[in-house]
Amino acid sequence: KTLLMLPGDGIGPEVTAQARRVAERLIEQGLALDIGEARFGGVAIDADGMPLTADTLTLAKASDAVLMGAVGGPQWADQPYGNRPEAGLLALRSGMNVYANLRPALCFAALADASSLKRALVEGLDILFVRELTGGVYFGEPRGIETLPDGQRRGVNTHVYTTSEIQRVARTAFALARGRKGEVVSAEKSNVMEAGLLWREEVQALRDAEYPDIRLTHMLADNMAMQLVKNPKQFDVILTDNLFGDMLSDEAGMLTGSLGMLPSAAIGDAGMPGLYEPIHGSAPDIAGRGVANPSASILSLAMALRYSLGAPELAAKVEAAVEAALDGGARTADLGGTMTTAAMGDAVLAHLA
Amino acid sequence: KTLLMLPGDGIGPEVTAQARRVAERLIEQGLALDIGEARFGGVAIDADGMPLTADTLTLAKASDAVLMGAVGGPQWADQPYGNRPEAGLLALRSGMNVYANLRPALCFAALADASSLKRALVEGLDILFVRELTGGVYFGEPRGIETLPDGQRRGVNTHVYTTSEIQRVARTAFALARGRKGEVVSAEKSNVMEAGLLWREEVQALRDAEYPDIRLTHMLADNMAMQLVKNPKQFDVILTDNLFGDMLSDEAGMLTGSLGMLPSAAIGDAGMPGLYEPIHGSAPDIAGRGVANPSASILSLAMALRYSLGAPELAAKVEAAVEAALDGGARTADLGGTMTTAAMGDAVLAHLA
Ligand SMILES: CC(C)[C@H](C(=O)O)[C@@H](O)C(=O)O
Ligand SMILES: CC(C)[C@H](C(=O)O)[C@@H](O)C(=O)O
Repeated sequence: KTLLMLPGDGIGPEVTAQARRVAERLIEQGLALDIGEARFGGVAIDADGMPLTADTLTLAKASDAVLMGAVGGPQWADQPYGNRPEAGLLALRSGMNVYANLRPALCFAALADASSLKRALVEGLDILFVRELTGGVYFGEPRGIETLPDGQRRGVNTHVYTTSEIQRVARTAFALARGRKGEVVSAEKSNVMEAGLLWREEVQALRDAEYPDIRLTHMLADNMAMQLVKNPKQFDVILTDNLFGDMLSDEAGMLTGSLGMLPSAAIGDAGMPGLYEPIHGSAPDIAGRGVANPSASILSLAMALRYSLGAPELAAKVEAAVEAALDGGARTADLGGTMTTAAMGDAVLAHLA
Repeated sequence: KTLLMLPGDGIGPEVTAQARRVAERLIEQGLALDIGEARFGGVAIDADGMPLTADTLTLAKASDAVLMGAVGGPQWADQPYGNRPEAGLLALRSGMNVYANLRPALCFAALADASSLKRALVEGLDILFVRELTGGVYFGEPRGIETLPDGQRRGVNTHVYTTSEIQRVARTAFALARGRKGEVVSAEKSNVMEAGLLWREEVQALRDAEYPDIRLTHMLADNMAMQLVKNPKQFDVILTDNLFGDMLSDEAGMLTGSLGMLPSAAIGDAGMPGLYEPIHGSAPDIAGRGVANPSASILSLAMALRYSLGAPELAAKVEAAVEAALDGGARTADLGGTMTTAAMGDAVLAHLA
């Protein structure tokens, strides 16, 4: 099996370096894995003139899993719209056809007090978002900014979904729900958007036809934004489109109080490579200082082991090591501690003996 | 001055009845106000075949202010898409041209413990959302669901904004910010949507040209969804488009722990009538039992007094009466108490002597 690392920008290289140490430890212990590396994001703009070269995309598609660090930063704010680091990320997601974005919002027992929410509301929180990742308003055409005859400008994006785009991501959500509580809540704004109504109808039809054992409910996205604050533990698996998932999964991630701990997986059809990345960003403000929390990157590696590298038992082992490090008091600055990025990596490695 | 009441569906008639008592008390005390009433929403579908008749829209546009209760309910779920109660609400907003939706997220001192968040994070919270209300993906064309040659369906909505649509709502936000802390945070997804980039550029250009005294910052909408949970008191005035404002203001409203307390105003150009409504919905589950909290409706009346009826001192008086009722221990079921809707109305009236 092969793993391609795309360290990217800001704190990306720092955190992926620790995930790499974890992967190398597992290789020492017998895991058969080849690790490669390529430029991606702002660093690729600087070196190659574009955030995602055709070579890097080809490499990514030929790998079993891709571990991305983070992309973006103020230095690339003036790039043309289609050549910014974020555009590279969208091109990578789309090019790899990883349409299902799995984002756990998990509250670690040792960190429950770090949440803004009262402890009782978040202790034991374990939500899995399944967010559509290669469609919707992120990719719809027509799009762009035009100047009208009267000198005004007009900006357009198109929110669009087809039956098959909805079905494939819903299948992923239903299948994952079977391994959990058998419950899915699907979010949309079917009351004001026809594309949301289509989403709702297609998800319901698929459940009725193929997943009658799943308890499916529908919730308006604005209501879900409220319910996540009011009582987040009412949720198990949440299914969303691309844009609602972006906002709702970030909101839910912050509920846990430890954004620096949260990984994500983006997967496509069975057997195709997956893309793994922390949900945190490139954090230019702390980049280069060696103080970022590498846990989300290490836990993204764990997800890669589970979903793309055929090693679910190693995934569980890595996750347990991170949890043990936390239980042992390991804390980077974002968790109120003083540990460096490397020391946090050490603390995790210590539990992988 | 004239006030048109549209009690609507569910708990709408129950809560607006209490707001009406408050208005009538103010009239007894010397306010010159004519109150009318019309059918709107589901009740209008039942009686007139449509949620908003041309007559009702004409009445609304001829009034100084419109006080809406709430619309919608399961009985109208099977209406054609364009004839549902929500479609009537969108037609009313658009027909009245009330493009700026003012949604305070205010934490009442007496209720701070009801929040999901730790008290220190929400005590004294006072955010004012200014949400664009008559454009964006709610209204953009093309829209709809079509069946493709291969039998699949395709759902489309169009997210679109022009310079002037952005400028007019941004002006409202900047002007309101001048009466507060002089700070505006504008939310969009300019990193993935060109229409969001246009939003950002136009808001910035307007600030630079006409409101140099305002401190304007831009924040990605997903980050704002997180920051509202992490540290809501960092915000004063928040400017958003229609869809992001829908979700973010609901999230912020729930942070206060007392959704049944939150009013809203929708206003347009100076001198044009405003539309006032609680942010809570029609709550079919508790409708007809006389237990709903009328405070949001009463506070919506206060906003009408301030923004459309030329009586800001009466607005402050009504707001103080609601606060005094709370301080005196008045609590409906949503606030953990046992008071009926009418008793809560009595408690407010008692402070309007
Ligand atoms: C960086 C940005 C393009 C991206 C998105 O909006 O999808 C990010 O917010 C995420 O959720 O992974
Ligand atoms: C009822 C619905 C159409 C409406 C909206 O989405 O605008 C509501 O959620 C609101 O925010 O007032």
